Amino acid sequence: MEELKEIMKSHILGNPVRLGIMIFLLPRRKAPFSQIQKVLDLTPGNLDSHIRVLERNGLVKTYKVIADRPRTVVEITDFGMEEAKRFLSSLKAVIDGLDL
Amino acid sequence: MEELKEIMKSHILGNPVRLGIMIFLLPRRKAPFSQIQKVLDLTPGNLDSHIRVLERNGLVKTYKVIADRPRTVVEITDFGMEEAKRFLSSLKAVIDGLDL
Repeated sequence: MEELKEIMKSHILGNPVRLGIMIFLLPRRKAPFSQIQKVLDLTPGNLDSHIRVLERNGLVKTYKVIADRPRTVVEITDFGMEEAKRFLSSLKAVIDGLDL
Repeated sequence: MEELKEIMKSHILGNPVRLGIMIFLLPRRKAPFSQIQKVLDLTPGNLDSHIRVLERNGLVKTYKVIADRPRTVVEITDFGMEEAKRFLSSLKAVIDGLDL
């Protein structure tokens, strides 16, 4: 029950959109903002607001790269990797404890 | 990616508090409001607002029983069982696809 209570109190990763962004970034480490937006089917404004929350909490960082045109890259931080893995492991443990 | 996108769009079960309530009810089918509140460490007002969302969407029903004093019981519906199991199975599939 402690694991479940911790999940329920996760205001940052408990949000399904933010969790989805982190799940997308976990195996890739980084991705262009525009790619995340398209693949996860989010509006730029919606993605931007969630990226800001993640960045403010140190889970991702963003920076611009100039190729043919400037683009924003979102990169998961080491802290973000740890936090996402911990949250997902707790979630998995809770789900595995159920008879689905 | 489709499974992840569906999870991200789950406004009802995507909320970690509502998901926690459903996870608590799944193996029990029903529980007194006051018990859920205590075990999951929620204020009555917070639990009430989430139960209302779940009830409005047909995932739980509530009713009063009179023992020594009236108490509200929250019961998961068949539809609620199905929806919670489906959501949790998707979540598990996504997590199992990651290298944690």
